Amino acid sequence: MATQTLLGDETAGPEARAVFDDIRLKRNTDYVNNFWRALAHDPALLKAIWERLQQAMAPGALDPLVKEMIYIAVSATNGCSYCVHSHTAAARAKGMTPAQHAELLQVIAMASQTNALANALQVEVDERFKT
Amino acid sequence: MATQTLLGDETAGPEARAVFDDIRLKRNTDYVNNFWRALAHDPALLKAIWERLQQAMAPGALDPLVKEMIYIAVSATNGCSYCVHSHTAAARAKGMTPAQHAELLQVIAMASQTNALANALQVEVDERFKT
Amino acid sequence: MATQTLLGDETAGPEARAVFDDIRLKRNTDYVNNFWRALAHDPALLKAIWERLQQAMAPGALDPLVKEMIYIAVSATNGCSYCVHSHTAAARAKGMTPAQHAELLQVIAMASQTNALANALQVEVDERFKT
Amino acid sequence: MATQTLLGDETAGPEARAVFDDIRLKRNTDYVNNFWRALAHDPALLKAIWERLQQAMAPGALDPLVKEMIYIAVSATNGCSYCVHSHTAAARAKGMTPAQHAELLQVIAMASQTNALANALQVEVDERFKT
Amino acid sequence: MATQTLLGDETAGPEARAVFDDIRLKRNTDYVNNFWRALAHDPALLKAIWERLQQAMAPGALDPLVKEMIYIAVSATNGCSYCVHSHTAAARAKGMTPAQHAELLQVIAMASQTNALANALQVEVDERFKT
Amino acid sequence: MATQTLLGDETAGPEARAVFDDIRLKRNTDYVNNFWRALAHDPALLKAIWERLQQAMAPGALDPLVKEMIYIAVSATNGCSYCVHSHTAAARAKGMTPAQHAELLQVIAMASQTNALANALQVEVDERFKT
Repeated sequence: MATQTLLGDETAGPEARAVFDDIRLKRNTDYVNNFWRALAHDPALLKAIWERLQQAMAPGALDPLVKEMIYIAVSATNGCSYCVHSHTAAARAKGMTPAQHAELLQVIAMASQTNALANALQVEVDERFKT
Repeated sequence: MATQTLLGDETAGPEARAVFDDIRLKRNTDYVNNFWRALAHDPALLKAIWERLQQAMAPGALDPLVKEMIYIAVSATNGCSYCVHSHTAAARAKGMTPAQHAELLQVIAMASQTNALANALQVEVDERFKT
Repeated sequence: MATQTLLGDETAGPEARAVFDDIRLKRNTDYVNNFWRALAHDPALLKAIWERLQQAMAPGALDPLVKEMIYIAVSATNGCSYCVHSHTAAARAKGMTPAQHAELLQVIAMASQTNALANALQVEVDERFKT
Repeated sequence: MATQTLLGDETAGPEARAVFDDIRLKRNTDYVNNFWRALAHDPALLKAIWERLQQAMAPGALDPLVKEMIYIAVSATNGCSYCVHSHTAAARAKGMTPAQHAELLQVIAMASQTNALANALQVEVDERFKT
Repeated sequence: MATQTLLGDETAGPEARAVFDDIRLKRNTDYVNNFWRALAHDPALLKAIWERLQQAMAPGALDPLVKEMIYIAVSATNGCSYCVHSHTAAARAKGMTPAQHAELLQVIAMASQTNALANALQVEVDERFKT
Repeated sequence: MATQTLLGDETAGPEARAVFDDIRLKRNTDYVNNFWRALAHDPALLKAIWERLQQAMAPGALDPLVKEMIYIAVSATNGCSYCVHSHTAAARAKGMTPAQHAELLQVIAMASQTNALANALQVEVDERFKT
């Protein structure tokens, strides 16, 4: 279905394989998911995305689960089926409860609804909301 | 700029004014922002959105600040200028720190980037990500 | 603000001016709005869009006002400020009542909300909905 | 495929089952489609969406078929496969003719095209289009 | 899966068949892909889209392969699975190399990321960028 | 208008100023545009985006002007006003002719139109388009 073949460990080049191995190491799993295998045709991009992702999703001022839920919100809004599936799985792996998932969906639905209304009404931004 | 005039307290009907008053009461402010004033042409929709919003954004399994950040993520992805402005202001009012805002932006940027790659590659969802 | 200058009757070429004149004739107005003046840098595209628009919006199995409301729905969803403004004005010129506008907004809001939920849940299409 | 399991009548809780029964009653069918079964994990949201949907889609200043076509327009623009399928089926059940469907598609295509051009040209809104 | 049946040569009307034949002739192939077969329910739209497409994609100031890559960029951003697949195949048929595809993906990823940041920050356009 | 203040050379921290200086050096200009000044609140993100951008837009298998046009296509589709303005200016600075700009707009319009039709028709991907 993809527009790119998925590269396995035997078909990927050494730079890509090195990223696969780092994914396995950091995630403590043998499994490398399809996204990385499709990206492996461009080892430099694969490496850049993997490294940037680790930085962006690391614990910091926001905890990793909150970050996963924000990721799901963006992915659902962009209609990215792959990303919604992979990050919902990741959020659950990080402990997202059914109640948290339900509230995430409620906020996504609410925001999408008011976004559409504000865009249809073309409401002007209140002065007090401007920095 | 809007495609609807903004109704003031004197021009809005009694049902809409009642919602304006409830917004003032619940938010402990005299200010009713433009979104509600544009929506006031349809008092039933105004009331429904205001009530639903309170439920969706109330403290629960997720805290209100996390919900505001999810709201910002959806609004930025939908390109809703009004909503990005109003909910960034709301998030700050709820205590969003510059560090939290920075990490929110990092996740939004990361997700948008991988969403585009997954959509351009049309990566098939891994079996293990399906419920 | 535009990324293209707006061509006036004196600066536009003869082919573009001919389209401007046809717009005036068909719409029975002296006014040619900014969209056409920005498009006039490419007279062939200007002519193709103007002719296609007349065909698409002509009375047929759907009446012109219904078509304008569908146009607003798409434009709001795409976040096209210009198009939301111009087609809301067009819909009003074709007799859209405040009650019809209110119901249009209600449907846009409802659809946006369930679209987001279906995308976040990645609900599989029911067999019976497939042709 | 979904990120949520679909709840059947036996697995759903009593509040969700009550909504399922109301859907069957109001739609005069035994069939409850997947969207509601995926939403049933959050009975309160399920109930709120179902009730709001009935209000938004009820006959009023716009007839139900026109509302379904507006719903399809928003759903296609948002790229929501599930919603396009379910509401195209609903529109046909409400009598949408092939000619009406064809004109709906023509308007969606036309609007999407001019939305993209207006966004690429960043055309400024004409003063006369502002309320 | 489609919301429209795909018309074959025997089921399509004479006007649609004439377009199918022109597609075969111009593309020097016997194959008419699903998009055209789904559009064939509206022969006038089918003809208009096919003719417009040939004009838009013809060699000119930009070469056809560059146009295909721009088409892929728009289609990926709109999350159109069908269009991403068909135009990635078309770009390859026109000679897109793996290196060109990789750089196309890098630019799509980069743009999507900065679009999201600019929308989340609502950065004001610099005076010098305005025409 | 932005949700973040724009940092000047005096208000930005040393890491951000170093990026500003590199932008000036690489672009051979004194001007640092608003996007970078808004990003400067997060020097690490500012640096990462600036470095990634240089890599993605560098001459390679695709020439820099083609990359700018692809960037405009994505930005217009995402409705990012800032990005459409800044990259249209960049494309012109790199030699984009009016004829090239016109053809870029034609392809963006064409793709947006067929994306909407394919999404509204939910056309199934032809087997031959799958890798």
